[in-house]
Amino acid sequence: MTKRYWEDFEVGEVREYGSKTVTKEEVIAFGRQFDPQPFHVDEDAANAMPFGGLLASGWHTGSMFMRMFADNLLADSASLGAPSIDRLRWTQPVRPGDVLSVRTTVLSKSASKSRPEIGFVQNRHEVLNQDGTVVMWCEGPGMIQRRNPDATV
Amino acid sequence: MTKRYWEDFEVGEVREYGSKTVTKEEVIAFGRQFDPQPFHVDEDAANAMPFGGLLASGWHTGSMFMRMFADNLLADSASLGAPSIDRLRWTQPVRPGDVLSVRTTVLSKSASKSRPEIGFVQNRHEVLNQDGTVVMWCEGPGMIQRRNPDATV
Repeated sequence: MTKRYWEDFEVGEVREYGSKTVTKEEVIAFGRQFDPQPFHVDEDAANAMPFGGLLASGWHTGSMFMRMFADNLLADSASLGAPSIDRLRWTQPVRPGDVLSVRTTVLSKSASKSRPEIGFVQNRHEVLNQDGTVVMWCEGPGMIQRRNPDATV
Repeated sequence: MTKRYWEDFEVGEVREYGSKTVTKEEVIAFGRQFDPQPFHVDEDAANAMPFGGLLASGWHTGSMFMRMFADNLLADSASLGAPSIDRLRWTQPVRPGDVLSVRTTVLSKSASKSRPEIGFVQNRHEVLNQDGTVVMWCEGPGMIQRRNPDATV
């Protein structure tokens, strides 16, 4: 597979990918392991709350995004990981039965001043449900290998 | 248990809590489910990389933080969840065998203009390893019930 290097990413490019059906079993299992608040792990308690029903932990939603991102974008890019998330918003509840996908937009690019072999790609990731509603979005840089570290940018 | 309401949080208060030993099995299991990059799931591949060895996914580190936060701070507060993370940095690798804990500082407080029954507490969370090194930090607001919604702030 041909890897995409830093030079191959274009500011403004948009990629849409992924399809993850959220299951009740996964919501409860993640909640029990990492976020055991009643609305993540206790269906009866969640049903009695104003929002009505089990909700996925925000960290679960982020982790489901990460899997789609890894399988679809990172898999064919010379990625060196990510140092940070600059902003993240959980904008709508994620419930069992939702089908999530991702839309990633390249906001900007910059070369590393200290490490000529890498560059940064600033992405905006939007996680959508089956209605096209954004349930979570985040922005942050990815570190990508440069094909031509000696080229001036 | 007496719940802590919005009024009970003081700007500048610091709470240190949690002790989570990171295991190889958990790092690989999380990686296989949510972040199947070689350095999270393939010990041999990870050992051959410059950083030398399996690393926990950043989302795994965040989820382990969430568990300590839920068990220690949210468990005794009138929390209504969190809408966002404003900044998050993964500052050091997290490896199997590391023992993580959390230090949470209240940065600021504000009443909700639209919802008098809630207030916001802006927290800075630092995740430390057994050497006291910060491996991840993030800042963001939590929504907390107000004991006295009608009180002027």
